[in-house]
Amino acid sequence: MATSVEAAAVNDDLIEALRAIVAGRLSTARSVLDQHGRDESYHRAFPPDVVVFPETTEEVSRIVKVCAGRQVPIIPYGTGTSLEGHIAALRGGVCIDLGRMNNIIAVNDEDLDVIVEAGVTREQLNRHLSDRGLFFPIDPGADASLGGMAATRASGTNAVRYGTMREGVLALCVVMADGRVIRTSRRARKSAAGYDLTRLFVGSEGTLGVITEVTLRLHGIPDAISSAVVSFPTMEGAVATVIATIQMGVPIARIELLDDVQMDAINKYSGLDYPVQSTLFLEFHGTQAGVAEQAEQVEEICQDQGGGDFKWAVKVEDRNKLWKARHMALYAALAMRPGARAWTTDVCVPISRLAECIAETKKDLAESPLMAPLVGHAGDGNFHLVFLINPEKEDEMAEARRLNERLVMRALAMEGTCAGEHGIGYGKMDFLTAEHGEAMTVMRAVKQALDPDNIMNPGKIIKI
Amino acid sequence: MATSVEAAAVNDDLIEALRAIVAGRLSTARSVLDQHGRDESYHRAFPPDVVVFPETTEEVSRIVKVCAGRQVPIIPYGTGTSLEGHIAALRGGVCIDLGRMNNIIAVNDEDLDVIVEAGVTREQLNRHLSDRGLFFPIDPGADASLGGMAATRASGTNAVRYGTMREGVLALCVVMADGRVIRTSRRARKSAAGYDLTRLFVGSEGTLGVITEVTLRLHGIPDAISSAVVSFPTMEGAVATVIATIQMGVPIARIELLDDVQMDAINKYSGLDYPVQSTLFLEFHGTQAGVAEQAEQVEEICQDQGGGDFKWAVKVEDRNKLWKARHMALYAALAMRPGARAWTTDVCVPISRLAECIAETKKDLAESPLMAPLVGHAGDGNFHLVFLINPEKEDEMAEARRLNERLVMRALAMEGTCAGEHGIGYGKMDFLTAEHGEAMTVMRAVKQALDPDNIMNPGKIIKI
Repeated sequence: MATSVEAAAVNDDLIEALRAIVAGRLSTARSVLDQHGRDESYHRAFPPDVVVFPETTEEVSRIVKVCAGRQVPIIPYGTGTSLEGHIAALRGGVCIDLGRMNNIIAVNDEDLDVIVEAGVTREQLNRHLSDRGLFFPIDPGADASLGGMAATRASGTNAVRYGTMREGVLALCVVMADGRVIRTSRRARKSAAGYDLTRLFVGSEGTLGVITEVTLRLHGIPDAISSAVVSFPTMEGAVATVIATIQMGVPIARIELLDDVQMDAINKYSGLDYPVQSTLFLEFHGTQAGVAEQAEQVEEICQDQGGGDFKWAVKVEDRNKLWKARHMALYAALAMRPGARAWTTDVCVPISRLAECIAETKKDLAESPLMAPLVGHAGDGNFHLVFLINPEKEDEMAEARRLNERLVMRALAMEGTCAGEHGIGYGKMDFLTAEHGEAMTVMRAVKQALDPDNIMNPGKIIKI
Repeated sequence: MATSVEAAAVNDDLIEALRAIVAGRLSTARSVLDQHGRDESYHRAFPPDVVVFPETTEEVSRIVKVCAGRQVPIIPYGTGTSLEGHIAALRGGVCIDLGRMNNIIAVNDEDLDVIVEAGVTREQLNRHLSDRGLFFPIDPGADASLGGMAATRASGTNAVRYGTMREGVLALCVVMADGRVIRTSRRARKSAAGYDLTRLFVGSEGTLGVITEVTLRLHGIPDAISSAVVSFPTMEGAVATVIATIQMGVPIARIELLDDVQMDAINKYSGLDYPVQSTLFLEFHGTQAGVAEQAEQVEEICQDQGGGDFKWAVKVEDRNKLWKARHMALYAALAMRPGARAWTTDVCVPISRLAECIAETKKDLAESPLMAPLVGHAGDGNFHLVFLINPEKEDEMAEARRLNERLVMRALAMEGTCAGEHGIGYGKMDFLTAEHGEAMTVMRAVKQALDPDNIMNPGKIIKI
């Protein structure tokens, strides 16, 4: 079994072979390569040697076959919105941009599922579904491709109620490292038929194969939706509200936590005037009566924890404005320090440890010169820091590294994970080993079995 | 990479080595071997050569190491309630009975999770949890071990609301084929950190490793629970009610379908007097207001579909009686033909195809001399037939095989699965290949990577 650390080079012969497969939809222009080598993270960019734009699974299969024959690395690319360097071509190679595979293949209204090509984005899908009374809930903020979201096991604001891509994907079509095409499952809601290949590929970050089609679970748009913002004089009160809400089993659709630093940034960026305090952004889905009941339960908890009054948003345009402000958190943070880049980190802990984990983290930040707003999908025990740094300044990078390492090791010590939703890419491989220990040998064995020549997104997740 | 079709034999030397590891908790008594070689299915029994009763993960690891050194097969055993011959020692070997590993290690009330040893049964767990206001919802009928339920990706009556073991397992402790011990995940609710090993082992039926500990998601016992039974003059009306309920997004906790044959059996077995018609057993969970609202929605659908009046069971003893009757369906069926064995088959289809799949199946049955009650977790699109057969009569076996094959191939043609919840064992391996096609090569590669000598429950899922 060969494992090539030194990847083979892309040469003119390969480029001609690729060009023939994709009928010229291929680029080696500097700007295109640069754009495909950098995601939205602080990580160093590594451009690929060539970008191809296939339009069918069959084309992807043929691309993989010619690369496999030459042991040339393959990097699948969705929208480039990952945060741990997932798409960096560390060893050069061929970037497969799936953006042109953007057909919605079949909406099965009655079964509440949909089959899409990997390049369809979540907003595109939801626009398509809106007049059918259905929606796809998983919402990582960015308008990411659904193939990329499957590959990175994305989640986001709605996961507390609707789950992550782990729960949201029913089946995948995958091109394996030798070009074979497989379907991981059927459309039945559940199955006990063999190994769960769907879940094996969800979160594999392109290291085991190229996802070309995704079958997703859909949900009916609820009869009633209402959103609210509530501020707390203390972080403890806000976190205790989240914990009590989850423990009471309230089926809340969103319960997002933002600290005072982040709220200040949002106010300035979006021209709002929320109190500069620890704040929860809430959303309730259900029947009219159900939403009213949930809201009453959570308002009572908030009051017990010293929260202020709910600022309600019920009309769709008001709700959109509220969630737009939340989704702009990253850009609002960046605007606090013009010219800075964002190093967005991500941990997730059992919810019983969330208050303690956040308190220790805020203490670290209070003692640091770096500014780092905190924002999180608190209902899952998941939160982020956004370090605002100048990557050219080694002292800032060192300080961000130090804080990040302390945060991740704290989460691991609390039985949490080093990546709640952003994944591993090449940015968190050491932490992955710290988290999984002996289980890394099993991941490595799976990788070597399915990609013996290590051509699928090499240098990510597994060190080979 | 060796793959041994011929398994090595268990000899006295191995038995002495095992005896030393488990301090004598070992048996080669005929009755014990026979009991461990047969599950609740019609499949031929294959007793192991020896049964060991470890009490710790460390003991399991040492057992696996001595077996691995000799290439002797290992068959993990929970409660023996599987239905496709999962525990048959096809090539002899060592049965690891996990029944003594029955400690509840930690209940994390605040996080709504629990860590149990693999031999803890679901009823044992729920008794333990009841005074904490928590419960574990997944309910396959049998009082199965939680390790076995994880290994077979069990589901059952509550899956329509709470999911299957795919969703219910947070993490596993697994002894690999060489005796290494791994933990597949942390306790965080979600994670994007590396390959989803948890889901890889859930449903692997002991073919990739021995599950020794399971971390499970729990739920708060709902404020209100109510159950009801409703009869329909036609099967079409009953199935249409299920489909409409799911499509409307009613968060129903149980929606079970039983045909007229099964209802007749239940009436006779449990001394009840339900109409001998297609019948739904329903359960609603939620707040008082929520349950009332759900029930109203479903009653309206039932009336539209010609259903009779709801027979309500609200008091806990009435509910228990109702669900006991449902769970006794298998024994009630068997009582229809004293001396018969049950061949229980299992398919799952997208819910839009459920009515058609059941109608065609009932047509087959009407033309067959075999009696086969139909019962199903209809909300998932999942249903069973129970063929009542004399396995000594080749014509009956041939007819059951014929009907079963027609049922499974019909489900596959409708984008369904050959096993909604009973798994593959050695009974459905050909159907698994028909379902997965090229993807079987990926399952095989994973199996060979993690169990190169094919000692882990050989002859199940993957043909080697």
